[in-house]
Amino acid sequence: MQVEIVTIGNEVLSGRTLDTNFAFLARALEEASVQVGWHTTVSDDAGRIAEGLARALERAEAVVMTGGLGPTPDDVTRSAVAAALQRPLELDESVLASIRERVSRLGRMLPASVESQARVPRGALAWPNRLGTAPGLLIEHHGKPVVLLPGVPNEMESLAREFLVPYLRKKTGRAVESVTLRTYGVFESMLEERIGALPEKWPGATLAYLPGWLGVDLRVTVSGDDAGTVGQVLRRACGELLAVVRGVVYAEGASGMEEAVGELLIRSGQRIAIAESCTGGLLAKRLTDTPGSSRYVERGFVTYSNRSKIELLGVEEAVLEAHGAVSAEVAGQMAIGAAKRAGVEIGVGLTGVAGPDGGSDEKPVGTVFIAVADPAGHALRKLRLIGTRAAIRERSAQAALDLVRRRLAGLPLEPSLDP
Amino acid sequence: MQVEIVTIGNEVLSGRTLDTNFAFLARALEEASVQVGWHTTVSDDAGRIAEGLARALERAEAVVMTGGLGPTPDDVTRSAVAAALQRPLELDESVLASIRERVSRLGRMLPASVESQARVPRGALAWPNRLGTAPGLLIEHHGKPVVLLPGVPNEMESLAREFLVPYLRKKTGRAVESVTLRTYGVFESMLEERIGALPEKWPGATLAYLPGWLGVDLRVTVSGDDAGTVGQVLRRACGELLAVVRGVVYAEGASGMEEAVGELLIRSGQRIAIAESCTGGLLAKRLTDTPGSSRYVERGFVTYSNRSKIELLGVEEAVLEAHGAVSAEVAGQMAIGAAKRAGVEIGVGLTGVAGPDGGSDEKPVGTVFIAVADPAGHALRKLRLIGTRAAIRERSAQAALDLVRRRLAGLPLEPSLDP
Repeated sequence: MQVEIVTIGNEVLSGRTLDTNFAFLARALEEASVQVGWHTTVSDDAGRIAEGLARALERAEAVVMTGGLGPTPDDVTRSAVAAALQRPLELDESVLASIRERVSRLGRMLPASVESQARVPRGALAWPNRLGTAPGLLIEHHGKPVVLLPGVPNEMESLAREFLVPYLRKKTGRAVESVTLRTYGVFESMLEERIGALPEKWPGATLAYLPGWLGVDLRVTVSGDDAGTVGQVLRRACGELLAVVRGVVYAEGASGMEEAVGELLIRSGQRIAIAESCTGGLLAKRLTDTPGSSRYVERGFVTYSNRSKIELLGVEEAVLEAHGAVSAEVAGQMAIGAAKRAGVEIGVGLTGVAGPDGGSDEKPVGTVFIAVADPAGHALRKLRLIGTRAAIRERSAQAALDLVRRRLAGLPLEPSLDP
Repeated sequence: MQVEIVTIGNEVLSGRTLDTNFAFLARALEEASVQVGWHTTVSDDAGRIAEGLARALERAEAVVMTGGLGPTPDDVTRSAVAAALQRPLELDESVLASIRERVSRLGRMLPASVESQARVPRGALAWPNRLGTAPGLLIEHHGKPVVLLPGVPNEMESLAREFLVPYLRKKTGRAVESVTLRTYGVFESMLEERIGALPEKWPGATLAYLPGWLGVDLRVTVSGDDAGTVGQVLRRACGELLAVVRGVVYAEGASGMEEAVGELLIRSGQRIAIAESCTGGLLAKRLTDTPGSSRYVERGFVTYSNRSKIELLGVEEAVLEAHGAVSAEVAGQMAIGAAKRAGVEIGVGLTGVAGPDGGSDEKPVGTVFIAVADPAGHALRKLRLIGTRAAIRERSAQAALDLVRRRLAGLPLEPSLDP
C-alpha cells in the first residue's frame, strides 16, 4: 500500500518549523508495512488543501493529512476537506461532549470557538484525542481512507500510534514485526562493516541503520503473509545481529540510555547522585526523564562555578588550580564528592568545554571528562566531542550515562565491537 | 513569484532524515521575496522525479529541486530531468575541468564516476560548487527557471546563498520583511480574540500564529514593491501589535526565554541559583543553554529527595511534613535557600508533580509551585499544567523562567493581555 502524506501549515511551508511530523508519520507507517509514496506540503489555504487532496487521491491508496484542525480562523483543513469531498460539516455530539468535558475538567476559560472542532465532515469517524480538543478524523471516501490529524506533535503522535498505525496494519493484512537494537559509541560505518551482508540471510527482512545524535539504532523489520514465520525469522535475525554488535547495544526498543541505567540501579538496589558542570543540569534531567526515577536519583549538583564545586562536592582548591576545572582529577573528585555528600552508592561527575568559547589548544571545545564513583572505586573517561554547544552537551550526557551503565553492568568501559 | 521546492531522496521520504534542506531553502527564498507555494518530496526514482517536475511546472513560476546529483547509481536527478525536459545530457567542459582540478587538489582517489557530474541537460547553466563536485544547474525551460541543487546540506546552502537567492531576487524585484514576537502564558485563541482584525489594516502584511509547547509566536510579514514602504508598514504593524499583546511578549526574533532572563541578569549585575525538584535539572539546563551563562548562573540544586531539600537548601522538616514537598511553602524555602547557600541575589525554586504517578485529589499530576527570591522579597505562583510528563516538565521550566523574568523586569507576575 502506498500512502501520500500531506502536511498543512504556513509555518512549515515557510521553513520556520521543521516538519518533524512528517518524519514521525513516515517512520510510524513503515511499522504498518505502508510505504510513503509522496509527501506534499501546502499552506493553510482551502484551495491549496483541496488541490493537495485531489492529487493525492489520484495517485495514492490512502491519504494522511496533518495540521490545521485547531479552532482559530487560520485552521481551515476541516472545512476545506469537507468542501473538497462534498461532505458538509456536521456536529458530532460525542466529540462535542468530550470537548466540553475536557474544558470543564481543566477548569479553564476556553473560547467558544473550540466547539467548532466538533463539526466534522459527514460520515467521518472521530478518533478521540486524549491530549487535546481536536479529534483525529477518518473518512472512507470511495473506498480510500482519508485521515486528518492535528498538527500539534504530541497529539498527532498519540493519535497515530493509537489509531492510524493499527488501522492501516489491519487494512494491509500483512504481518509485520520489527525490533530495534540501540547502539552507542561506534560510527554507523563501523557497524556496517561489521554487519556486512548478514541481513541477506533473513527472508523478508530489512535492516535499517538509524543514526542520531545519541547513537545509531538498528531496526530489523520482517514482513510476510504468515505471522508465525515472521516472528520466527525476526527472532533468528535479532539473535544473529546481537551476536555481532552486542558490545555496543544498550537497549532494545524505544527506551533510552537513562532507562537502562535506571533498571540497573533498581536491580542492584543502589542510588545515584549527579555532579555536572558543562551540561548544566542536562545529565540529571536525562536520569529524571524516566517516571519513578525518584527511587534511585537522590540529588544532583549543577556546579557551574568553581566555588560551588568546592563547597558542594569537596573538590580541592589546589586540584582546581593545578589541573583546571576541566580535568580528569576534578571529574573524579566531583563523582566521589557527589556520592559521599548525598550518602548514596553511585556518583557521576562531568566537566568539559561545551563552547562555543572557552576552548584552548590543550583543551579545545568538546573536551569532556566523565567519572563514575562506586563502592569498588572509580572509573574515568576523556572525550573529544564535536558539534554545536547543544550537540556537545547532549553527547556528553549520553557518554556519562553509558559509563555508569557499563560500570553497573560490569562491562568493559570503552564501547567496542570486538568480542 | 511562487516557487515549488521538490526534495528528492529515499532517506527523506522514509522519514529517516529530517528535511532541513527544505526549511533552509524556504527561509532563504523569503529573503528574495519569493514565496514557496508548494513543497513535494519524491524518492530517488526517475518516474517520480519526472512526475514531480511536471506538476511543479504546471502550477509554479519556478522550480527548485534538491538532491540526487551525486555520482552513484542511485543519484538519478540529472538524467530524470534531462529526459523529462527533453534536453539530453551533454558534457560541460568547464564543469569537467573544475571537477578534475578539485580531485587533483584534494589528492584523493575519487571514483571515475564523479566525472558523470559534468554531464548536464542541454542549455543548463552550471553554478560552480566550491564545497563539492556537483554544480548547481539552472535551466530556463520555456521561460520558467528550473534549478537543480545537490542534497548535501552545506553544498546546497552555499549554492543557494551565492547563486539562487541573488538570481531570484533580481527576477522578482520585490521586498519582503518580517518580525516575530514571542509570547508566553496565554492561549492562541485568546491572542486571536484580542488581535482580531487588526492585521487587515496593514497593507501587504500577514500575521501568522505559531503555537508551540512553550508559547505562541506571532510573525508579521510584509511584502511590497518598495523596500521603504515595506519597512514603514512593518514598523507600524509591530507597534500596533505590541500595543495589544505587550503583556505577554518576552522576546523578539528567535531568542528564548532563557536568553531574556540572561540579559536581565547581566543588565542588573545579579546572579542566580536554581533549586528544582520535578524538573530534575531541566530548569538549570535551560538557563545554561545560552553560551556565556556562567557569568550569571552560579549553581543549581536538583533536590529530588526530601533529605536533599533539607540538607542543601535548608527547607524545614516541619514545613515538609505539614505541607508536603509539593507546596507553596516548600517552593518558597527552596528559592530562598538556593540564593542564600549560593551567595547570590536571585534564587528560583520549583516543585511539582510531573506524573504520570504521584498525583492526588488535592494535588493532581500537573500541580507545580514556582517561587523566586530576590533582595526585595519573594514571589510565588501555582500552576495546573496538562500533558505528558515531558510536557509538564518543559512547561514548568518555561513558567519558572517567565516568573524570574517578570520579577527582574518589574512586571506583573501573571501573564495577562489586560493593559
